[in-house]
Amino acid sequence: SDTPRSDTSAVRATGLRAAFRSVRAHTDALAAPLSPEDQVVQSMPDASPTKWHRAHTTWFFEQFLLEPHAPGYRLFDERLAYLYNSYYVAAGPRHARPKRGLITRPDAATVAAYRAHVDAAVDALLADEASLAPEVAAIVEIGLNHEQQHQELILTDILHAFSENPIAPAYDPEWRFRPASRAPGAVALPEGIHTIGHQGDGFSYDNEGPAHRALVGPVEIDRGLVTNGDWLAFINDGGYDDAALWLSDGFAAVQQEGWRAPGHWRQEDGRWHVVTLGGLVPVDPDAPVCHVSYYEADAFARYAGRHLPSEQEWEVAARSGELADAFGVVWQWTRSAYSPYPGFRAAEGALGEYNGKFMINQMVLRGSSLATPPGHARTTYRNFFPPSARWQFTGLRLATFPT
Amino acid sequence: SDTPRSDTSAVRATGLRAAFRSVRAHTDALAAPLSPEDQVVQSMPDASPTKWHRAHTTWFFEQFLLEPHAPGYRLFDERLAYLYNSYYVAAGPRHARPKRGLITRPDAATVAAYRAHVDAAVDALLADEASLAPEVAAIVEIGLNHEQQHQELILTDILHAFSENPIAPAYDPEWRFRPASRAPGAVALPEGIHTIGHQGDGFSYDNEGPAHRALVGPVEIDRGLVTNGDWLAFINDGGYDDAALWLSDGFAAVQQEGWRAPGHWRQEDGRWHVVTLGGLVPVDPDAPVCHVSYYEADAFARYAGRHLPSEQEWEVAARSGELADAFGVVWQWTRSAYSPYPGFRAAEGALGEYNGKFMINQMVLRGSSLATPPGHARTTYRNFFPPSARWQFTGLRLATFPT
Amino acid sequence: SDTPRSDTSAVRATGLRAAFRSVRAHTDALAAPLSPEDQVVQSMPDASPTKWHRAHTTWFFEQFLLEPHAPGYRLFDERLAYLYNSYYVAAGPRHARPKRGLITRPDAATVAAYRAHVDAAVDALLADEASLAPEVAAIVEIGLNHEQQHQELILTDILHAFSENPIAPAYDPEWRFRPASRAPGAVALPEGIHTIGHQGDGFSYDNEGPAHRALVGPVEIDRGLVTNGDWLAFINDGGYDDAALWLSDGFAAVQQEGWRAPGHWRQEDGRWHVVTLGGLVPVDPDAPVCHVSYYEADAFARYAGRHLPSEQEWEVAARSGELADAFGVVWQWTRSAYSPYPGFRAAEGALGEYNGKFMINQMVLRGSSLATPPGHARTTYRNFFPPSARWQFTGLRLATFPT
Amino acid sequence: SDTPRSDTSAVRATGLRAAFRSVRAHTDALAAPLSPEDQVVQSMPDASPTKWHRAHTTWFFEQFLLEPHAPGYRLFDERLAYLYNSYYVAAGPRHARPKRGLITRPDAATVAAYRAHVDAAVDALLADEASLAPEVAAIVEIGLNHEQQHQELILTDILHAFSENPIAPAYDPEWRFRPASRAPGAVALPEGIHTIGHQGDGFSYDNEGPAHRALVGPVEIDRGLVTNGDWLAFINDGGYDDAALWLSDGFAAVQQEGWRAPGHWRQEDGRWHVVTLGGLVPVDPDAPVCHVSYYEADAFARYAGRHLPSEQEWEVAARSGELADAFGVVWQWTRSAYSPYPGFRAAEGALGEYNGKFMINQMVLRGSSLATPPGHARTTYRNFFPPSARWQFTGLRLATFPT
Ligand SMILES: [Fe+3]
Ligand SMILES: [Fe+3]
Ligand SMILES: [Fe+3]
Ligand SMILES: [Fe+3]
Repeated sequence: SDTPRSDTSAVRATGLRAAFRSVRAHTDALAAPLSPEDQVVQSMPDASPTKWHRAHTTWFFEQFLLEPHAPGYRLFDERLAYLYNSYYVAAGPRHARPKRGLITRPDAATVAAYRAHVDAAVDALLADEASLAPEVAAIVEIGLNHEQQHQELILTDILHAFSENPIAPAYDPEWRFRPASRAPGAVALPEGIHTIGHQGDGFSYDNEGPAHRALVGPVEIDRGLVTNGDWLAFINDGGYDDAALWLSDGFAAVQQEGWRAPGHWRQEDGRWHVVTLGGLVPVDPDAPVCHVSYYEADAFARYAGRHLPSEQEWEVAARSGELADAFGVVWQWTRSAYSPYPGFRAAEGALGEYNGKFMINQMVLRGSSLATPPGHARTTYRNFFPPSARWQFTGLRLATFPT
Repeated sequence: SDTPRSDTSAVRATGLRAAFRSVRAHTDALAAPLSPEDQVVQSMPDASPTKWHRAHTTWFFEQFLLEPHAPGYRLFDERLAYLYNSYYVAAGPRHARPKRGLITRPDAATVAAYRAHVDAAVDALLADEASLAPEVAAIVEIGLNHEQQHQELILTDILHAFSENPIAPAYDPEWRFRPASRAPGAVALPEGIHTIGHQGDGFSYDNEGPAHRALVGPVEIDRGLVTNGDWLAFINDGGYDDAALWLSDGFAAVQQEGWRAPGHWRQEDGRWHVVTLGGLVPVDPDAPVCHVSYYEADAFARYAGRHLPSEQEWEVAARSGELADAFGVVWQWTRSAYSPYPGFRAAEGALGEYNGKFMINQMVLRGSSLATPPGHARTTYRNFFPPSARWQFTGLRLATFPT
Repeated sequence: SDTPRSDTSAVRATGLRAAFRSVRAHTDALAAPLSPEDQVVQSMPDASPTKWHRAHTTWFFEQFLLEPHAPGYRLFDERLAYLYNSYYVAAGPRHARPKRGLITRPDAATVAAYRAHVDAAVDALLADEASLAPEVAAIVEIGLNHEQQHQELILTDILHAFSENPIAPAYDPEWRFRPASRAPGAVALPEGIHTIGHQGDGFSYDNEGPAHRALVGPVEIDRGLVTNGDWLAFINDGGYDDAALWLSDGFAAVQQEGWRAPGHWRQEDGRWHVVTLGGLVPVDPDAPVCHVSYYEADAFARYAGRHLPSEQEWEVAARSGELADAFGVVWQWTRSAYSPYPGFRAAEGALGEYNGKFMINQMVLRGSSLATPPGHARTTYRNFFPPSARWQFTGLRLATFPT
Repeated sequence: SDTPRSDTSAVRATGLRAAFRSVRAHTDALAAPLSPEDQVVQSMPDASPTKWHRAHTTWFFEQFLLEPHAPGYRLFDERLAYLYNSYYVAAGPRHARPKRGLITRPDAATVAAYRAHVDAAVDALLADEASLAPEVAAIVEIGLNHEQQHQELILTDILHAFSENPIAPAYDPEWRFRPASRAPGAVALPEGIHTIGHQGDGFSYDNEGPAHRALVGPVEIDRGLVTNGDWLAFINDGGYDDAALWLSDGFAAVQQEGWRAPGHWRQEDGRWHVVTLGGLVPVDPDAPVCHVSYYEADAFARYAGRHLPSEQEWEVAARSGELADAFGVVWQWTRSAYSPYPGFRAAEGALGEYNGKFMINQMVLRGSSLATPPGHARTTYRNFFPPSARWQFTGLRLATFPT
């Protein structure tokens, strides 16, 4: 089914320790095709090295789980908190984000040892799961979800680095983009009051609440995603040259960045190709368009005489189960700015910095992508990026307002 | 009353020609205390010279009213469209915004002659108002509202220039900030479906529609504004140093810009002063705080354990008539990003560029300020600025969500 | 004659008081065609407003002459030192250079009053010239030379502002560029030891000494200047597109700035025009090329299979009296970096900051330009600008090394 | 002895093939302590990854030697020219310099194979050295000198990367800075005509000629280098805070970069340490100061009441054999801007881009450093860097002008 299980259901099925082992192993599996050279570089300030992701997710458990809750835990190396704290002001000073790519040492083997050291301590802590305090279990759970987010970033960030390389290396030469479901038609939502946001006792991030009632509709939301074929028509119709189609900031980005096509696209021998995790391949018109910014998604909607859905509209439509490719293909830009839900307040302490302090200058994406770990996303999940970002697996679906 | 008449009611009362004469004369009155020297400078890319405002509002009538609708109209000087088009791509190429301050010629006297030339032609066109085509009358009406917006900018922009001057000149030495109403308590809004946005046949901007139904509440919105006294407590409690109170981008702005207090504030002889239109004066603790950015407003709300209202909440509360200082003191930041209302589509043609293409990376402010011309604002009016902007007359009121 | 008298000879002929009156009056005469609007703008950080030049040269006398040496002198306005100190760290804090264009007040009339106030005090001090202490007379003399430098800058800076204006205003509609002397051939300098730098008791700047012996030649230096006609050939031969002709930093400047021709040139109706003090006029092929950067001068020399002379070579050639247009047309780039002469040490005190601290990242120009006040330059005079600067009246002459 | 042999003498002693093998092997030896991770990163646009240095020096032989002069040579991989051409416009398009650190593939092993492939081809070409055309031998010779320059850069660039790492890794834990010779006194040079620049038939770079006569002296040049102890006194006397000691651009750099000490220095536990190739060690007061920019060298000379020598003065003094530590410790800033010698003209073709196009905005350093390969430098050698550069092994010696 398109609707992913909540991560928590997996946890409940297998137990915390099994979930921990599984998530941690998946990170290592993702890094495995990458050499230490591949894992150390940072291709832009917004992207991070693979090695950094591997170490940072480990630091997260050390800092928030082991130090406060594992009696007698010995730090692997006290210098690593400075290097691998991302943005938690309350957790102390940290290395400058744009300089993550300069840290050749600790080397990849040391980071592997760091992971093993922390894994052993967490494993021991989780041995007697039944006696675990609920607040400690909650930290494990957020740590696992956190690591899953970085699993997606490992893929998007290395793809960005490879896309900057003239020889366009492949992460996995066998990798292929999944074609779009051919799902015609739209989901019609009549006006109605719905509860938006996460309810119940499964895991969710703080930004998915408070759940609250909202009036949604009438609106019709396409069942299918916009495809590369649609996008090629936009390009060939001069979409990137027509200021009237764009937000003012968007057209400024087009001109400053020299955008002529989605991210990672290159023209070779007169034909559009795209750098994928499988290397450079011709653009497939039937695949969903990917690596478009919000600015491009918005311009395309205007070009098509359509709209982007709001995140509330998306959530209600997804809940209906009628959307195709809601999950697992590309994140879908909504027209909603990333704002706090009514009455939102960040939790106390460093983990309160997780989501709340980024609720400005970003747009919400819903669903999940081919790079999202299974079980990670859910209907209420709110992803967010600045409107100019396009190195993630980002696409769009369209909506219509009845008149 | 606090609730302003719609501009259109003035137009209806006096007729278009009288309204035109009145608005145009008000612009000249605002510029009168400023020398040609004062009128030519541009203190930052976001601010424009007074002379430019005077010429640009004139060009607006020439371009959109006289050229297409006044038979036989002769351009004052064909080179001026390039200089005084602001951002209308469909109206042709234009001078770079950050270089508006370099145009010492045409001089102030020539711009006055330009205004007179256009005024005479519009006056003639409006002589027989009854026979005016409705679409032509509509252009006059938007031109008047447009000029009123620039009237406010004339004041905010020259104040910014003066605030950059070490000797802090006064625009009008008699000018005094209006003290806040002492309005205790809050307006309680229970959950309810309300129509948001402009309805009826009075004038409004395109961004105020489509009117649509929305669920608002429960929320309580303070009747009064946050004051300088409140803000001094925030400063003295270390508000500008405590990263935990700020959005991440907000704290970055604090550090990069060196913010220690609201805009135009200076410490002299150990006491906070502020550059106002009346010159440098001590900060009055009883006056509403002004010249704060969204970042600061948001941090203050968090410091106070409160929230900013959404624009919909503000609109419903304002309609109740119970808010104090809703209009005419300071624009009030809301927590709403500036987004299109459901189904919004910009009009065809250059005037469709008026508002829609700016619906990104900005936050909505509601109400109006001491610098807003009487009759210009209304309950559905949506002002918007980037979250870092603070040279406008911007303040805040707070809200609480019942738990 | 081409060789200008030293300024000092004028002083000696007429006396200090007459020289003071004459130089000060000349500044006012230069500013006279400019309105207060024209006088207030700053078109780039390197250029200053006319009003600033008028006030700064006045502050120079107040700060360095009147305050220390005129008993009982009363400051005109104690706030002006902050506004009109340029870069003298020892004279106290000062307004940021890029913000000089924001100072609309003090207005032009106040600056005129400031000039009159200081003029009266200096005039009184110079009434009994014979009894003036030599060190005080020396300050007057440097103050006059200083003001003459700013006289040239008044013209170059306003021309830059006008060149940024699409309507290309004229400073003086009657102004015409002086055609080049048609001076064929070259001055041949055999190897010889010469004294370089200023000697004797006339006025000179500190950077013209210490006089020292240097080996100069063999070299041949063209008697005439490079012309616009020569430059058009360079343009038409693709000079601005051929990286091989350029210094690496120079070609980067070409690409970043989009240089296709000298400064202030514009193509209109398929023909090159240039914004001059007389307004926009067709480029005259017979006139010396002007407004070229060092990068361009260097590239042109390479294109021509020639070299730029060193400043020592220029000085020896100029001393021979055989160069045409050595003075009074365009400053001539030399291939010499602006460095201290052997043993140079800046004077103590604020006036020691005059020249010495700029001896890096700049190239020496020799001669003088049409904008240099008569009597200001001399054979040993060292002007200097960064290699990318081209808003001054800068051109070149070529040299050959015998092989 | 302090005076290094010319590289050419080594070539002459052992033959080209032996020299080729020796130089190439030395590069590999320098890279050996560095992991592939270490070798891939670029810590700033001016520094390059070790792997890039290894590949670029190989490309140099492939491009300039093998392609034109080795019949039947097959390119290792035709995509590498784009990646490993540094700045030779005539050799075709190239990868952007600031993005060298993004090239994780080709990996280190592939670059090793590239080196082996080219080494074999060159070895074959040099097998019959006697029959080698002189112009081909000349290309080998410049290729070897080129590679030696990059050998020094391998060390300075990795040291910069390590200095940016909070844990300060060691390139070689055994590495120690060589203490300065304790050489009191000065070399006195009376006025005299000397030939400056390279003469004779040994190897030299194009920028060392044309040899020409120049008048040098009188001047006295210290036999010894400025030490860390001297520099600590400068720091403790407030040298970095006193604008009067600095060039204007230099003090701006101090403020913008936050310089409080030489490059790679860190204060730990209240004491100055420095990141060296041997890791973080306490600053040794007896060692020559290293990693100072020209701005700092110039400010120190002013602080000491002394001067920097010119490059001509240095060359004549070095030729006397009386300078201590002229070679092999730190490059020594001179007060000479990097300019062409009289009559200099770059060679035709891509190799003419080697030095000439950088003769602007840089200062000359003389001597050589501990990182310079033995036999590489010579008395006429001209090294050059921008005045703000301090990641090289750069120090200074002082001079006095008799009065
Ligand atoms: Fe994280
Ligand atoms: Fe406007
Ligand atoms: Fe000056
Ligand atoms: Fe190289």
